[in-house]
Amino acid sequence: MDQLVKELLQGNRRAAARLISNIENDVPEKRALLQEVFPHTGNAYVIGITGAPGSGKSSLVDCLLKKIRRDGLTVGIIAVDPTSPFSGGAILGDRIRMQDHALDEGIFIRSMGTRGSLGGLSRSTREAIQVLDAFGKDIILVETVGVGQSEVDIVKTADTTVVVLTPAGGDSVQTLKAGIMEIADIFVVNKADLSGAERTITEINIMLDMKNETQWRPPVVRTISVQNEGMDELWQELRNHKHFMKESEKLLEVRKERVRRELTEQVEYLVKNKIWEQVREGIEIETLVDRIVHRRLDPYSAAAELLEEIDFL
Amino acid sequence: MDQLVKELLQGNRRAAARLISNIENDVPEKRALLQEVFPHTGNAYVIGITGAPGSGKSSLVDCLLKKIRRDGLTVGIIAVDPTSPFSGGAILGDRIRMQDHALDEGIFIRSMGTRGSLGGLSRSTREAIQVLDAFGKDIILVETVGVGQSEVDIVKTADTTVVVLTPAGGDSVQTLKAGIMEIADIFVVNKADLSGAERTITEINIMLDMKNETQWRPPVVRTISVQNEGMDELWQELRNHKHFMKESEKLLEVRKERVRRELTEQVEYLVKNKIWEQVREGIEIETLVDRIVHRRLDPYSAAAELLEEIDFL
Repeated sequence: MDQLVKELLQGNRRAAARLISNIENDVPEKRALLQEVFPHTGNAYVIGITGAPGSGKSSLVDCLLKKIRRDGLTVGIIAVDPTSPFSGGAILGDRIRMQDHALDEGIFIRSMGTRGSLGGLSRSTREAIQVLDAFGKDIILVETVGVGQSEVDIVKTADTTVVVLTPAGGDSVQTLKAGIMEIADIFVVNKADLSGAERTITEINIMLDMKNETQWRPPVVRTISVQNEGMDELWQELRNHKHFMKESEKLLEVRKERVRRELTEQVEYLVKNKIWEQVREGIEIETLVDRIVHRRLDPYSAAAELLEEIDFL
Repeated sequence: MDQLVKELLQGNRRAAARLISNIENDVPEKRALLQEVFPHTGNAYVIGITGAPGSGKSSLVDCLLKKIRRDGLTVGIIAVDPTSPFSGGAILGDRIRMQDHALDEGIFIRSMGTRGSLGGLSRSTREAIQVLDAFGKDIILVETVGVGQSEVDIVKTADTTVVVLTPAGGDSVQTLKAGIMEIADIFVVNKADLSGAERTITEINIMLDMKNETQWRPPVVRTISVQNEGMDELWQELRNHKHFMKESEKLLEVRKERVRRELTEQVEYLVKNKIWEQVREGIEIETLVDRIVHRRLDPYSAAAELLEEIDFL
């Protein structure tokens, strides 16, 4: 087994950090590493936390973190910022937050930015979750800035999804209408001391009434994260939802669905690689490219032609 | 031929709008439509315009648009907003801008938001360009809000890329350092009447000096779009770059590269479809899923197993 994976399983923090970096940098041995990590996963519970910039997610996560630690559970945090291709800011934030918790071995914090595509980011995030899971963290918090697709991607990796809103955001309700509603297992109205909090809560509840979900109605928790208020209730609701997911076998269901997606993605990945390999090794594509560029052939028909020439096994 | 495509080629605006909507909505006949459109493309020159929110891109594009129209060329505008999955705002902006130009048949404006993935958005944008190209527009302006990956995606569709900066943005130089530098063919410093404009220009030039590009050194154009200033120079530089691209055969080169990418993407698309089709038709994946969920098999080995069962032809 790879030395790094061995050290990860022994609880070595630097090994965990190095493994995640290797994954982010897409090193050639990445798949082999993930393959070794995989059998040691499946024990962590993954909580996704999403919300608009300025909704106070980071401080909320920090408070929640302390609460979970007091219950004796270990926590991994993955802070995802899909709006920036530059990891500079993310890493800085990382360092600052890390200092707060530097002496606590039960906490591991990692920021991730978009190095490649957004698709690449959601993949790296999933892979980093695997590493922290194998690392032995009980709870993994995935925190993301809400920019549309990223919230949806979070749901695909999290067992429980928390949507953070603020009374200040005039957009909040509009946002809810347009799809966020579907992904929340728990709503948090943060900065609940601001005026408008009651209205926001009422609006969420009206929408929940319309949805009329019978199995799990998302609770609405009010918090003031800068004053560390509402954390007991939030943590209680998180445990309730976890319990519901396990008892109703929904957890197995969503995890199976995740595996299905992962599996077909891996097949697609292998296939893509085979295509590119054979293109590099000289399958004739330049003639096709030439004909397309001069509009004598369309790319759709050309693709069908090319497909016949590729050996997939 | 499809009636809609026929009407597009005859210059019917509503047909153009409907075709783009069909593409965005991923209708089943999308590929057939694009196949019919394709032979009529390749004549438009595509200009990408990117910059941070608040850099005044939209008003810049509006001024540039008027300038280009005065030269007798027709213009298509595709305004891409990858930060929002909701088209509501985009469509509203659309309508307001459309009113300004409602009487000019030589202008066609369309906004696009992220309906699905960001990857999906860059594909729809490319496809909308094809439609406006076949529609007969001489110049297609693709305007995008800069959020990392989207700028990079623009470059892949544009023949010339304009990066818009403002003196106000303290971030501007940092942004430049981190990769935007690589994609700009022309820099615009908009709001050039604000203090700090000279410094921004100097900083761009220092970086251009370091890069020391011999074939094409990106010019730095100052504009004040709300006062319609700098448009003559910008349009002149755009024509210079177009001339350079054609003369140096770079245009053919980048368009070929685009075709290569499109071609392999199409093959990947066909392959993906085949995988999913066969999974739906009952290739046994549930046993694999079960073994993975219980950690008796990893998804990477499972994918290799599955690959052998798929018939790609």
